Amino acid sequence: MDTRTGLPLVGMVGGGQLARMTHQAAISLGQSLRVLATAPDDGAALVAADVHVGQHTDLDALRAFAKGCDVVTFDHEHVPPGHIEALAAEGHRVAPSAAALRYTQDKRVMRERLQELGVPVPRWAPAGSAAAVAEFAAGSWPVVVKAVSGGYDGRGVWVLGASDPLPEVELIVEERVPLRRELSVLVARSPFGQVAAYPAVETVQRDGICVEVLAPAPELDPDLAVRAQQLAIRLAAELDVVGLLAVELFETGAGLLVNELAMRPHNSGHWTIEGARTSQFEQHLRAVLDYPLGDTGLTAPAVAMANVLGGTPSGMSLDERVHHLFAADPAIRLHLYGKQPRPGRKLGHVTALGSAMGPVRARAARAARWLREGTW
Amino acid sequence: MDTRTGLPLVGMVGGGQLARMTHQAAISLGQSLRVLATAPDDGAALVAADVHVGQHTDLDALRAFAKGCDVVTFDHEHVPPGHIEALAAEGHRVAPSAAALRYTQDKRVMRERLQELGVPVPRWAPAGSAAAVAEFAAGSWPVVVKAVSGGYDGRGVWVLGASDPLPEVELIVEERVPLRRELSVLVARSPFGQVAAYPAVETVQRDGICVEVLAPAPELDPDLAVRAQQLAIRLAAELDVVGLLAVELFETGAGLLVNELAMRPHNSGHWTIEGARTSQFEQHLRAVLDYPLGDTGLTAPAVAMANVLGGTPSGMSLDERVHHLFAADPAIRLHLYGKQPRPGRKLGHVTALGSAMGPVRARAARAARWLREGTW
Repeated sequence: MDTRTGLPLVGMVGGGQLARMTHQAAISLGQSLRVLATAPDDGAALVAADVHVGQHTDLDALRAFAKGCDVVTFDHEHVPPGHIEALAAEGHRVAPSAAALRYTQDKRVMRERLQELGVPVPRWAPAGSAAAVAEFAAGSWPVVVKAVSGGYDGRGVWVLGASDPLPEVELIVEERVPLRRELSVLVARSPFGQVAAYPAVETVQRDGICVEVLAPAPELDPDLAVRAQQLAIRLAAELDVVGLLAVELFETGAGLLVNELAMRPHNSGHWTIEGARTSQFEQHLRAVLDYPLGDTGLTAPAVAMANVLGGTPSGMSLDERVHHLFAADPAIRLHLYGKQPRPGRKLGHVTALGSAMGPVRARAARAARWLREGTW
Repeated sequence: MDTRTGLPLVGMVGGGQLARMTHQAAISLGQSLRVLATAPDDGAALVAADVHVGQHTDLDALRAFAKGCDVVTFDHEHVPPGHIEALAAEGHRVAPSAAALRYTQDKRVMRERLQELGVPVPRWAPAGSAAAVAEFAAGSWPVVVKAVSGGYDGRGVWVLGASDPLPEVELIVEERVPLRRELSVLVARSPFGQVAAYPAVETVQRDGICVEVLAPAPELDPDLAVRAQQLAIRLAAELDVVGLLAVELFETGAGLLVNELAMRPHNSGHWTIEGARTSQFEQHLRAVLDYPLGDTGLTAPAVAMANVLGGTPSGMSLDERVHHLFAADPAIRLHLYGKQPRPGRKLGHVTALGSAMGPVRARAARAARWLREGTW
């Protein structure tokens, strides 16, 4: 408890944009997020009052950080499971638990568990050697190999032809799924067991990085939309998730396949800040604190989010580009993360809302392109 | 400029809830508000990363605070005009200017200026003595006397009968206006001269404290609604306001009278956080930074805001009351300011949105009453 306010104190390990936006949501709840950042200029460290600078791999740093928190949660998956277990054993509430987080830290463990549960996943196998990969491919190249741990934003994923060398990390191999598109469903679950699901959204990737999210997923078969939510709700319960669970899905001719899981606020949920009655960031706080969950309804018929990536340097500063953007579209919603621009880096996102997806998507994409490239 | 991000650095003098919510808005713009708070547990100081603790009446504290800021602005009207002029003379951008703020710091100066502009105000006079007040009343009691400076939330305003003693501060006296209701119009104005007006809202006061705001003002004559906006836009230009201007109005049988002015985010604009495409807090930042202003359109046909006041202590903590509130109304939007509860103190506010004002207003009022009293 924060003794100055009598309200809960949540600690989030990781100081990136997810913690930054979670702090923003915490303010409305009368709270102030405590952040464990690796550097004082991490996105969340720039804006939060209660910042510890330290490594998430350092158990002593985690212990000092957890002291006084009502609950400790995460903006990434990189805390060693043993450290999370140690904190829990010492009496700290940690959400999600080490056991649940395991399914986001190890793709092999995740795939095995989903198969046990009868959840459809791409055909896959462990990939201990080039021979094992060739056996899996059975002449049908390319295949997809993925690092078992540590991948994000397209890193740790390779599309492999017959003659390509195998990356030297622990891998799984998967069929290259002939997909129609990617979907994502975000659910929150509280320790009490309450679950709330957001509508299924379409996510658009480029070079393995999410560039656009369309909410709700356009022209999604209503039965499939419900099944996607039911699947995510079931997984949250089966995996005993506390907090958010993002379920990334492939939509194929034969139905849905689960691609990835994340147990934290997720890029596919940034649209909820303006597009849903309760943002994913507030929902995550409500879930880990065992508050009743908030309304997940949409605030507009069509919501589009586009990530702002670092682009090629132009003569115009980011601030100047913001001026022009605001003049061109007074209703665009901007979120910048306080990061130094680097090509391909997620610097922020924009959200557009309206009555029809076509123009809304075009507005978001145009704004993101302008901020990235300085051209309309 | 914040050299870590290349984005602007805004300093806000005052560490209350207005600065707290402005910091929350600044985060989306990639910024981090610098706050001059009088104590480390002020609402904004609890959540902002860049906090100076000092007095707004201390010119040296203001100088140290202003150093490095792109612009200095205010969450209250209590900075001495001479200090603001000194900062400006030393090269700091200050918005609004001392000359504009004067109209919010001295009711006599404000009334005189509005009369010069031909803006309708209640009948009034300076009130240097009991004799002057009696002469103004001319036998028609009660009258309203107001402290020329320093009043807020019902303080500094007295309804005076013939035999009541005169408060011993500098006063003006006014007719007690037979009003239908109170309205408020919020506009933003940038140095460039762009102006954006929010729809006129109804404000409901109890004991001089704003308790409810209804947006848009229910059943307001459309011509009057436009005239209210035009009046506020004209005043923002005439008074050379940079930032927000809140114009509090009396609606009477004979039209609109201007009651009060404020040049900062205002309680009558809290509904804009969820209820308008651009919140008043972001709009104030955009205005003082000379960004193009944001869309002031509503996000729902009816929006109601109710202030959460400190109530009589009950067996249940504020946090427990929040749990019950979230269970009872998953779509209510809560904003707590991190303040210790005291009877009558503004601890936060709630906002409800929907298609019709009746149920929306009832939801907001019920939530505020529950948080105050622990009874539905």
